[in-house]
Amino acid sequence: MKFVNNDVVRRYPSFVKIVEVSPRDGLQNEKQPIPTHVKVEFINKLSETGVKVVEATSFVSPKWVPQMADHMQVYSDIRKCEGVSYPVLVPNMHGLENALKVGVKEIAVFGAASDVFSKKNTNCSLVQNLTRMEQVAKYALKKGLKVRGYISCCLSCPYEGLIPPERVAEMAYRLYSVGCHEISLGDTIGVGNPASMRALIEAVSALVPIEVIAVHCHDTYGQALANILSAIECGVTIVDASVAGLGGCPFAKGATGNVATEDVVYMLTGMGIETGVDMEGLLRASEYICSALGRETSSKVGKALLAKRKETQDYD
Amino acid sequence: MKFVNNDVVRRYPSFVKIVEVSPRDGLQNEKQPIPTHVKVEFINKLSETGVKVVEATSFVSPKWVPQMADHMQVYSDIRKCEGVSYPVLVPNMHGLENALKVGVKEIAVFGAASDVFSKKNTNCSLVQNLTRMEQVAKYALKKGLKVRGYISCCLSCPYEGLIPPERVAEMAYRLYSVGCHEISLGDTIGVGNPASMRALIEAVSALVPIEVIAVHCHDTYGQALANILSAIECGVTIVDASVAGLGGCPFAKGATGNVATEDVVYMLTGMGIETGVDMEGLLRASEYICSALGRETSSKVGKALLAKRKETQDYD
Repeated sequence: MKFVNNDVVRRYPSFVKIVEVSPRDGLQNEKQPIPTHVKVEFINKLSETGVKVVEATSFVSPKWVPQMADHMQVYSDIRKCEGVSYPVLVPNMHGLENALKVGVKEIAVFGAASDVFSKKNTNCSLVQNLTRMEQVAKYALKKGLKVRGYISCCLSCPYEGLIPPERVAEMAYRLYSVGCHEISLGDTIGVGNPASMRALIEAVSALVPIEVIAVHCHDTYGQALANILSAIECGVTIVDASVAGLGGCPFAKGATGNVATEDVVYMLTGMGIETGVDMEGLLRASEYICSALGRETSSKVGKALLAKRKETQDYD
Repeated sequence: MKFVNNDVVRRYPSFVKIVEVSPRDGLQNEKQPIPTHVKVEFINKLSETGVKVVEATSFVSPKWVPQMADHMQVYSDIRKCEGVSYPVLVPNMHGLENALKVGVKEIAVFGAASDVFSKKNTNCSLVQNLTRMEQVAKYALKKGLKVRGYISCCLSCPYEGLIPPERVAEMAYRLYSVGCHEISLGDTIGVGNPASMRALIEAVSALVPIEVIAVHCHDTYGQALANILSAIECGVTIVDASVAGLGGCPFAKGATGNVATEDVVYMLTGMGIETGVDMEGLLRASEYICSALGRETSSKVGKALLAKRKETQDYD
């Protein structure tokens, strides 16, 4: 009763790239305004962790996301470290123009794999939004920028329910064809499971190379790490994560949001998979932002390591 | 760059048996005395969830575990439902005699795969304790009882560090040879990862049939579901879990304990794996015990479903 060919599965990838999304996806839903200098210092601390990508901010309209209104200032003020890229979210041409003004080198365009969600989130249909994403991406590429594509609600939508993997695959193919170097597949409401994740990755990797696929898992139902493991077993080598698990899901009040970078790095490091990310650095960045926000980390690794530090008896 | 033969992996098992350990492993470390009638009512509620095994209590000395001092009363008072078994933990012959007095049908013996941990936890060496486990098991089997064997610290020990999988495999083999129908492998301090879990299951299943192996994962570092997934992919079909994630780890203060049954059932059900366990029933049992203990559930699924219920807008 063996279900798996162990010799095959054992060959996990040797390296997984972490995309740190906390300064954007983690903070965008915070109700209290966070001072610009705090965001900047937070990003600077993340730059010291060894992570290669820090999504810095979002060039959306302040009308829609007031927390990200200082995007130009944030981007201008952060220390740009060699070897680290600082993509920013861009919803439209206006955002792109502003991004270009401050010398952004990499952007991310975004859309949902659900028509109803698209209408509620971006005020236009899935197809209309995809076309806009392509326009923005094309223009950015012409200007020499790198472009990442986000597809949200890849496994399920709070309005439409289950999403067919083929629909996501087609969207991913269009974004890849336009020139996106990475396609991040989001389980926005965190209801995916290892089997649905596997089906998704199989469908998408049939149309675009597995090397460009990233997974973006929310931990609302505690499934994120298992889903990430499933994706990695399918060959995915890019994982989005957020220090301290920052980022609530607007569709499940009281529920936790993004998978915590600490938890992902703990799992991968334990498995012998390199990430280049330093746990102590993550904990420092986490402590800084949690203290600024006046809250506890949502990372179980963060909590456990903190508890261990506080212990009088040390087992190490 | 595909790492896995998908056709093989896709064949997850059709059924996974959940062993509900909350009344024993979940409650034994609670400092405040819990009234016997609360424990009984809690177990009765668990019996209504469809779960096939509820570990009811522990026949340990009240000197060591005061919370379980009412074990004879608890076992006598619970409603024994048809098709549900109610094993109890038994550390020695004295405990077994008491268990027999109240008509216990199934016991669990326990030991650690670490010598230092054994000495601290059971006051004798690993080998001495294993011999005692075998004696108790043999006597219980002679009396017609079923016996489960627990091995704790299978992946790591707070004192010894990493534990060689071969040592666990040898212990499992001895317990299986004596007649244990199930061997539960515990990641007691929750520091395992999907790769170390895989190595463990491979080593143990080389000596005992995969059908008798259970995994008992603590979620201290948030790794439990990923580790359970890894074990299931190796062919394991028995998973220990604890409603509401009850059960702190005494070796990591402030950290969470057992993997929550709700989270395990959510994952498995989503993957199309039957457990026979009803989520609403789990939530009712969880609400009952959390309210009695005056605390929040540690289950992410529990929190998310609770939050969803409270929402005025319902997406379903």
